[in-house]
Amino acid sequence: MSAHTVRTGVWFIGARGSVATTATAGCAAVAAGLHPAAGMVTETAPFAESGLPPVASLVFGGHDTLDCPLPKRAEALAAGGVMPHGLPSAVRSELAAADAEIRPGGPLPGDTRTDEELITAFAADLTDFGRRNGLARTVVVNVASTEPAPAPGAQRLPASSLYAAAAIRAGCPYVNFTPSTGLRTPALQAAVAAGALPHAGRDGKTGQTLLRSVLAPMFVQRALPVRAWSGTNLLGGGDGAALADPAAAAAKNAGKERVLTDTLGSAPEGEVHIDDVPALGDWKTAWDHIAFDGFLGARMVLQTTWQGCDSALAAPLVLDLARLLARAHERGLSGPRPELGFYFKDPDGGPAALSDQYLALLAFAERLRGEK
Amino acid sequence: MSAHTVRTGVWFIGARGSVATTATAGCAAVAAGLHPAAGMVTETAPFAESGLPPVASLVFGGHDTLDCPLPKRAEALAAGGVMPHGLPSAVRSELAAADAEIRPGGPLPGDTRTDEELITAFAADLTDFGRRNGLARTVVVNVASTEPAPAPGAQRLPASSLYAAAAIRAGCPYVNFTPSTGLRTPALQAAVAAGALPHAGRDGKTGQTLLRSVLAPMFVQRALPVRAWSGTNLLGGGDGAALADPAAAAAKNAGKERVLTDTLGSAPEGEVHIDDVPALGDWKTAWDHIAFDGFLGARMVLQTTWQGCDSALAAPLVLDLARLLARAHERGLSGPRPELGFYFKDPDGGPAALSDQYLALLAFAERLRGEK
Amino acid sequence: MSAHTVRTGVWFIGARGSVATTATAGCAAVAAGLHPAAGMVTETAPFAESGLPPVASLVFGGHDTLDCPLPKRAEALAAGGVMPHGLPSAVRSELAAADAEIRPGGPLPGDTRTDEELITAFAADLTDFGRRNGLARTVVVNVASTEPAPAPGAQRLPASSLYAAAAIRAGCPYVNFTPSTGLRTPALQAAVAAGALPHAGRDGKTGQTLLRSVLAPMFVQRALPVRAWSGTNLLGGGDGAALADPAAAAAKNAGKERVLTDTLGSAPEGEVHIDDVPALGDWKTAWDHIAFDGFLGARMVLQTTWQGCDSALAAPLVLDLARLLARAHERGLSGPRPELGFYFKDPDGGPAALSDQYLALLAFAERLRGEK
Amino acid sequence: MSAHTVRTGVWFIGARGSVATTATAGCAAVAAGLHPAAGMVTETAPFAESGLPPVASLVFGGHDTLDCPLPKRAEALAAGGVMPHGLPSAVRSELAAADAEIRPGGPLPGDTRTDEELITAFAADLTDFGRRNGLARTVVVNVASTEPAPAPGAQRLPASSLYAAAAIRAGCPYVNFTPSTGLRTPALQAAVAAGALPHAGRDGKTGQTLLRSVLAPMFVQRALPVRAWSGTNLLGGGDGAALADPAAAAAKNAGKERVLTDTLGSAPEGEVHIDDVPALGDWKTAWDHIAFDGFLGARMVLQTTWQGCDSALAAPLVLDLARLLARAHERGLSGPRPELGFYFKDPDGGPAALSDQYLALLAFAERLRGEK
Repeated sequence: MSAHTVRTGVWFIGARGSVATTATAGCAAVAAGLHPAAGMVTETAPFAESGLPPVASLVFGGHDTLDCPLPKRAEALAAGGVMPHGLPSAVRSELAAADAEIRPGGPLPGDTRTDEELITAFAADLTDFGRRNGLARTVVVNVASTEPAPAPGAQRLPASSLYAAAAIRAGCPYVNFTPSTGLRTPALQAAVAAGALPHAGRDGKTGQTLLRSVLAPMFVQRALPVRAWSGTNLLGGGDGAALADPAAAAAKNAGKERVLTDTLGSAPEGEVHIDDVPALGDWKTAWDHIAFDGFLGARMVLQTTWQGCDSALAAPLVLDLARLLARAHERGLSGPRPELGFYFKDPDGGPAALSDQYLALLAFAERLRGEK
Repeated sequence: MSAHTVRTGVWFIGARGSVATTATAGCAAVAAGLHPAAGMVTETAPFAESGLPPVASLVFGGHDTLDCPLPKRAEALAAGGVMPHGLPSAVRSELAAADAEIRPGGPLPGDTRTDEELITAFAADLTDFGRRNGLARTVVVNVASTEPAPAPGAQRLPASSLYAAAAIRAGCPYVNFTPSTGLRTPALQAAVAAGALPHAGRDGKTGQTLLRSVLAPMFVQRALPVRAWSGTNLLGGGDGAALADPAAAAAKNAGKERVLTDTLGSAPEGEVHIDDVPALGDWKTAWDHIAFDGFLGARMVLQTTWQGCDSALAAPLVLDLARLLARAHERGLSGPRPELGFYFKDPDGGPAALSDQYLALLAFAERLRGEK
Repeated sequence: MSAHTVRTGVWFIGARGSVATTATAGCAAVAAGLHPAAGMVTETAPFAESGLPPVASLVFGGHDTLDCPLPKRAEALAAGGVMPHGLPSAVRSELAAADAEIRPGGPLPGDTRTDEELITAFAADLTDFGRRNGLARTVVVNVASTEPAPAPGAQRLPASSLYAAAAIRAGCPYVNFTPSTGLRTPALQAAVAAGALPHAGRDGKTGQTLLRSVLAPMFVQRALPVRAWSGTNLLGGGDGAALADPAAAAAKNAGKERVLTDTLGSAPEGEVHIDDVPALGDWKTAWDHIAFDGFLGARMVLQTTWQGCDSALAAPLVLDLARLLARAHERGLSGPRPELGFYFKDPDGGPAALSDQYLALLAFAERLRGEK
Repeated sequence: MSAHTVRTGVWFIGARGSVATTATAGCAAVAAGLHPAAGMVTETAPFAESGLPPVASLVFGGHDTLDCPLPKRAEALAAGGVMPHGLPSAVRSELAAADAEIRPGGPLPGDTRTDEELITAFAADLTDFGRRNGLARTVVVNVASTEPAPAPGAQRLPASSLYAAAAIRAGCPYVNFTPSTGLRTPALQAAVAAGALPHAGRDGKTGQTLLRSVLAPMFVQRALPVRAWSGTNLLGGGDGAALADPAAAAAKNAGKERVLTDTLGSAPEGEVHIDDVPALGDWKTAWDHIAFDGFLGARMVLQTTWQGCDSALAAPLVLDLARLLARAHERGLSGPRPELGFYFKDPDGGPAALSDQYLALLAFAERLRGEK
């Protein structure tokens, strides 16, 4: 990068997690030409003229409550097959640079700071990151573990909302890639409106729900009534452990069911299970069983089995979103971006079918064109 | 139906086959309110104002080389689970009426008639059917067993082309729901052009290819490179036996692969098998295995298993097509209809992704509106 | 049957349920030569000389708390595809005869009888059944809906134990084809010992667990460490509804996991889900995902999908067990029969691998030989 | 190893192939305690007293027509996920030692040697290997690519038979882990009889057929008639390419079908496909679809999907067989060993069910006990 290049910050909540580590390492690998940009939609032709910040111009930092250095996290991910052996060492300097920009998250047990104090501290971290690195802007992306749905009447904001509030206060576009609350709480409504920042969420659509958003429209278009749609997810890693908490799983499942209800018009029979299976590591298997009716009541069944690596599916989408929101901010767009429903289980409005969401995304790519 | 209602003919090539029998019985059942119109896209809201001939106004006839009476065929299908028990007797009179309108097909071995004589005879059957029944028009629909791909340099037209030529000569819109040649031969090019009739084809998209036409676009839209797409189809019934002939299977497979090539830009690795498994009767199981790459080369896999009854999937589409082409003819439209690519593996142009094909179909529904 | 033939009673707890209705109708169909005895192990060659009561000599009765007549239940099962259309009418007289032998079960809400009074009443029903029909003996078979596991410290016996106690009191061999308590309670221990009757249980092995009992030994024999074994069951019908109760599902799952623990030496990671999906009716789909290690730690996966009709799987086994226990009683055998572990998820001892259980069953068939 | 330890040779035909390389590297890793002996049945408790040569006492060599050094082959396998990264360098000296013992195979195109000359040369290689390394005996194991089935009336022996003849001539026990001809040709009958050496074959049972040999007995034991058994194998690597040749695939499939015919009594409907899918590398996916009948003709289906690494499945079995045949030779056993049917698709007699084959293997382990 030339010294005069505009640089853009990407600030991960959960910066030492699998998704953030994969995104950080992968961005460096793609920028260095070590790997093609598989899974990065913003690197395909329709986005070439949209004025997105180049991959090589992204600067990474973030909050996390853990201590494990990023290079070591990357080695662990490579050992688990999430990224190629050899990659962590090939991008070691970029990982070390990002590691130096990670600040302690919170609140941890025993932390006596108020919500306001925490928001102030987090916002200061963001402002400091931008100033020290000479960044044009910083996009905050929540990729932390899924929080339990907040109890009704809870007095304090959940952590995801504290970070989101800090983003708004620091003037940063915000992406919530998890099912956690983030900006979606009445307590932040006024600040969000006043901030006039672009933001997007909620809950990245990487596997089972991605499939559902292409298959459910097929049944509707072909006038084939869906009687039951059942699913089981097996996954290990940190995500599996977090979702073993029934409250966290409930938050996740709400998003998963939304696509069916929105597309089919009503919720079909069937449940969704999320099982923590540590033996699978970061690899996820999702089985879906769809019972539908044909002509004259013939009973038919479609089953799908999806075997993927969640971090490898999420990381390029996270980079896409950071680039798109950075450019939206540059173009002066603000508020929720329903054009980004393509990426989310529980989007801020817009269509539910992936093909329609893709059309909306292409239109957004067009809208982002213009002078830099 | 009132005596003054406009009536529309549906003439099946292969009128005693599973698809035609299911369509004939099912149309009567839907018209009588015995069953909802599951699988009939033309009965959904967007088509309500398109001026399509009502289900109850369709009159059935056809060609076949076999003798088994339709009511008996329907009983056999009910025994195999293709339609509900009780349905054949509930629509016995409609089946008997259609049975009385079936004429001998050909050529059978030993038939010494020339191609021209056969076309003349078939066209006379069509004209006679229309006149005797006072039909506004008759749509010819090929649902006969798949023919082997014609040998290069063959002197005579394949049977499917003889029937197609007869349709043109008799002034009938034509649908080819099979992978057989039909109108797609240079020998008929001039007649087709002169006939100025609407026609549509080729090879109905009912299962594995339907799925491929929704899943392949997902990989493209998400920028996930597909490395290999393999498939196996197990089916019995007449279709299974016909496709056990490698030449017939080759004709079928060409269409199946087209959707992948058109969508992905090039053909991925992988083969498609079609196995005759008589034990499965009219039920088909299609297994697909898709190996794709994620970010940083992560190897991922999607598998799908589709278990459906081919006749129950095809029959409502066949009724859709007959109604749409009848109305297109009424509105003076002619030539191939790429707007109907939604229904075909190997369509007459138009987009390859099901969602785009559906948009084209909706636009066509709009275009058909107007005075009757 | 000649008037002098020895006749054997089969008394179903849950006599109007799917399994009992299928067994009753199917026994009549097999006896009449209308169907082969698919699924009846006792009709295969190794059992020909074991002196089992002939299929045609079985007389059916039972307890149930519902009222629906058996012929009507059979029609409903035929409509759901559990038995062929036409079968209920073909065996209508046998169904009516069995229907006439069904007595009210209990206790229903509001029933003020004590446990002792209920046992006495049920035992009187059994004795009366045997006397009126001149039966050599009657085998009681529990095929009622799964009970919740009894709460610790419960004062009263669960219904399954009341019926089991009645069987002992009436001198009847007893089979528990469900995971309910039945004889397995300290409260009945003395009576069971004093009764000196043969009995067998618990929880019929018809699908997922059957598969597990053949697959788990394969991994052991091939020295392939199983890391995780996960499963999901989808089913409708009465069984699906009953197992939607978490307490009932817990009772069921305990048996399902036992086969893995017994075979593999310890429980692998992974959960088992049982989902009520009413749309599936009596058909069950069970998906299993087995993660195992190969040489040098290679991660491998086996997945199985089992699609079967539970009642059709259970009914022939229930007839097998009734015949085997009747003959065991005739030969003076008493107590739990570990030789019948072949049939159960949670057997009374014996090996866990199906192949070993089959060898034990063959040895039992040999032991039952001798004069009648 | 102490200098006085008895050492045993393992001579691979196809010594630079995936299976041989994995076995060679893996044996060193297990001997060094770097990995547990997953998949090695001979390392389980029942074999502890059988007097098998210790893993650390095996010395490797072989024939191959390729040149790629073993350490480099091992690196390629590690890159493809067949063995852990780091393993090739950890056992580099053992790989280099084995590499130094690999002799050119043949005949390559242009080789003018007669069959007799080739056999003599190969036997000399074996004798020389044993003498130079001071080996008690050497077991020859064929793990070369599958040959096409020999044309009827072929004048010359296939290569697999030349190597097998050389093994006999050099006094070496012989294992044929492939479906190639090996010893099974009348031309070698007299030599095999005169050699009085133990030998075993044919075609290692590592995936789909392994599963079939445990599932087919289940259907028989439960009296459930199998109507159709269909299968598709997807695999890349050298094996995929070799089996893309229809003649080679035919040789492979004959073994695959044998287990069904032997177990079920007759061949069910259904085909088996083997597709070369280079994208899958050494990983194989096998899908099986089994249609079976339940009570009263209920149609049921079991599907299995097996995803494994063929080389990692085969390598420990190859080590097992080398050890078992070495010990059999030491104990003076000769001729075909039906007790080893556990390992083969197309064994030299013995039972077809895996559980029975395992019992036979355990009895063999017992028989091998005794003084060394």
